[in-house]
Amino acid sequence: MHAFHDIQFALQADTFHAPVKGQFAFHPDFLLLINIDGDIAATYTSDHPHYADVRQTLVAQDKLKVLEKGQYLMPGLVDLHCHAPQWPQAGKGLDLPLYDWLQNYTFPLENRYQDLAFAAPIYQDVTRTLLANGTTSAVYFASIDRAATELLAQQCMDLGQRAYVGKINMDNTEQCPPYYCEQNITAALDDTDAFIHNVLAIKGNENRLVQPVITPRFVPSCTPDMLNQLGKRVQQYDLHMQTHCSESDWARDYAKQHYGKTDVQIYADAGLLNHKSVLAHSIFLTEEDVSMIKAYRAGIGHCPLSNMFFANAAMQTRELLDSGVQIGLGSDIAGAPSPSIFRAAFDAVSHSRVREEGVDVRLSAGQRGTANARISFVEAFWMATAGGASVLDANTGILETGRHFDAIVIEANTTIGNLRIWPEFDTPRDILEKIICLAQKENVKRVWVQGKDVLR
Amino acid sequence: MHAFHDIQFALQADTFHAPVKGQFAFHPDFLLLINIDGDIAATYTSDHPHYADVRQTLVAQDKLKVLEKGQYLMPGLVDLHCHAPQWPQAGKGLDLPLYDWLQNYTFPLENRYQDLAFAAPIYQDVTRTLLANGTTSAVYFASIDRAATELLAQQCMDLGQRAYVGKINMDNTEQCPPYYCEQNITAALDDTDAFIHNVLAIKGNENRLVQPVITPRFVPSCTPDMLNQLGKRVQQYDLHMQTHCSESDWARDYAKQHYGKTDVQIYADAGLLNHKSVLAHSIFLTEEDVSMIKAYRAGIGHCPLSNMFFANAAMQTRELLDSGVQIGLGSDIAGAPSPSIFRAAFDAVSHSRVREEGVDVRLSAGQRGTANARISFVEAFWMATAGGASVLDANTGILETGRHFDAIVIEANTTIGNLRIWPEFDTPRDILEKIICLAQKENVKRVWVQGKDVLR
Ligand SMILES: [Zn+2]
Ligand SMILES: [Zn+2]
Repeated sequence: MHAFHDIQFALQADTFHAPVKGQFAFHPDFLLLINIDGDIAATYTSDHPHYADVRQTLVAQDKLKVLEKGQYLMPGLVDLHCHAPQWPQAGKGLDLPLYDWLQNYTFPLENRYQDLAFAAPIYQDVTRTLLANGTTSAVYFASIDRAATELLAQQCMDLGQRAYVGKINMDNTEQCPPYYCEQNITAALDDTDAFIHNVLAIKGNENRLVQPVITPRFVPSCTPDMLNQLGKRVQQYDLHMQTHCSESDWARDYAKQHYGKTDVQIYADAGLLNHKSVLAHSIFLTEEDVSMIKAYRAGIGHCPLSNMFFANAAMQTRELLDSGVQIGLGSDIAGAPSPSIFRAAFDAVSHSRVREEGVDVRLSAGQRGTANARISFVEAFWMATAGGASVLDANTGILETGRHFDAIVIEANTTIGNLRIWPEFDTPRDILEKIICLAQKENVKRVWVQGKDVLR
Repeated sequence: MHAFHDIQFALQADTFHAPVKGQFAFHPDFLLLINIDGDIAATYTSDHPHYADVRQTLVAQDKLKVLEKGQYLMPGLVDLHCHAPQWPQAGKGLDLPLYDWLQNYTFPLENRYQDLAFAAPIYQDVTRTLLANGTTSAVYFASIDRAATELLAQQCMDLGQRAYVGKINMDNTEQCPPYYCEQNITAALDDTDAFIHNVLAIKGNENRLVQPVITPRFVPSCTPDMLNQLGKRVQQYDLHMQTHCSESDWARDYAKQHYGKTDVQIYADAGLLNHKSVLAHSIFLTEEDVSMIKAYRAGIGHCPLSNMFFANAAMQTRELLDSGVQIGLGSDIAGAPSPSIFRAAFDAVSHSRVREEGVDVRLSAGQRGTANARISFVEAFWMATAGGASVLDANTGILETGRHFDAIVIEANTTIGNLRIWPEFDTPRDILEKIICLAQKENVKRVWVQGKDVLR
């Protein structure tokens, strides 16, 4: 049995998680012991021979919190793609083409963040809002401004959110507006190096709760030299990397016309791909692209709601899941309006269903869609938790011994929000599906990151 | 100027509504005077020559409530299609084909409502939840049980929700399970007549806040005789009628095979169509169907989220809006999980965008979708309010003199929920789009129906 002196607290909770893609596990009255480092020291299912003894000892030591029935523990959600500075845009401008959206809304807004007094309250609100929606790990695209991006990293640290924060690099004067473009590649890279150093040096960040991410915006906004120099840093320091990948017809065609390659090939050749790279979107992938992503063990950040508005097509989620590529979910604030990864999980299912059924009533049923393209709610839940953690090479996403304790409690036993459980009718699978369909911010009652209660 | 003795209260509010399809109006500090009947007696825009005088008089008489900045008044939302007894199913079983969904989940559940002790708490929760989500008018499919459906009508009356409630008729023994089928058409029609009488006789229902609706489930579940007999009642008593119309390939083909007609033709020939009929879904319409719906001035209840899972295709919303057919929105609880008509409005836009862009990456951009198929957020807002009211021939949906005061207040000036407004950046159109994208139940702060505060 476990030594209890290093146990910070323990939970007894009806628990969902998805250790295996395509499956979920439900453990009623699961016991989880969290050590003083915030890691899961041990777990006991209710049929474990030591369950009663362990529980009794925990109670005697006043270390056990018992969740109410109708409350469910699950891994914290992982958002692989969030443009933090675009938070004020969430829910507007969705009728614009991607190019206009960037030039007329996004770039002018992102440029404002060099004013730290402007940046601070917005960054505070977006990080708090993501946490309050159950997102324990977030991958943030910030802006090109180093100081503001360091402020964002500091705020994640202060709030206790596990965060992967990137200062954007974009230096192609043909594609970036003069006021929002790195004019000098040496200065831009010095800035990037300083950013990496400063984030790792944040007080209290010894365990890298907040990590710097190499962040070329996307192929069109970077010069080849910039991509290569950033790739060197990814390799040299073994850093996370995030970027956009083959998001739209235009983006795919740009790469073909300017490089004679796909986005994935360009990133690979520049040294940008490794086992913890996040390729947001990845709509128009070739078979070779998929093989290459797998070979590098890079991952995809699937942003279904944003895809409906800006990607020109649906991601081939079914085929990609089957291929074994690592995939998680992203909110893509503000290419989509919702900061909730439950919403992203739902939309991943619904967009896959629309892809399976098709849309055009003038076609026959057989011609209208792509047979068997659907994904399940359980697969979406896996992407939202274990899948996303795996993309980041993070030791989270599953509630098992040895992992960091990043977890949330969903409240479903009241009339708050729209989520309702009827014990008479609902199996564990039904409950999990209902949570994905209906859980909103107000249903997220507790949030822990690295064992620390971070909901305020 | 207006006589004030019959004014119950007045509001000063930043107000959105959509009197004209495709447009919205924003009136800052709009004054609305509500009379003792709960109707809008007068309105004043802030540039009206009498505005200051009227306002002063209202203040002197202690009748003016001034909304805070960041709160927005708008017409209450209209849900044209909600299966109240399916509320326990919301958010589960969405992976089932429609036929299995009905036979294995829905019919057994609906059959339980003959037990009033079972029905009461669920009907209370679903009606309260819709109100709390801002739905001031709801069109309910109940079950075949008369007593339970009268209970639902009574609860709408007690809560003060404007409601259109239907006892379902379904008597085709080939399509309905033996335990959930009206075996005797005479008894079924007597029951229906009694239902109509009893709803109209509810105490306090002199102004028909709650109305009975003739409700053949859909073509396959009714005998031709049943459809004809119900049609007679629609004509004789000038009643509302609701049913499902051409929802899926299977439903369309059933009509063709069994009647050699379309659903719309069948309903028209049975006398079921009038100027306040609600045809839910209406996915696979012919040109003749559209002309016929227009000729009868019948309306469509568009349920986009449900369509993504069960309709096999996207509604031709763009073309139908342009044709001048009356259209509103439906939640289709529980063919879709969300009771929010804001969500339905959002999904109407996103599904139209997916239809425009297409889904299949293997096709060229030109072949992938249907050009110009998108609808705007403003059109979706119109469907959610004025359009839905128009389908029902209800004197609501627009905040103008002479209409019933059915309205809601959206709270956007705090950090509740995920809705954020930045006055520096957001135009009235941006604010309206953000509300549609992000308003959740917790943002709905006040709800009035017929001038009565009904949020509790
Ligand atoms: Zn993005
Ligand atoms: Zn329905």
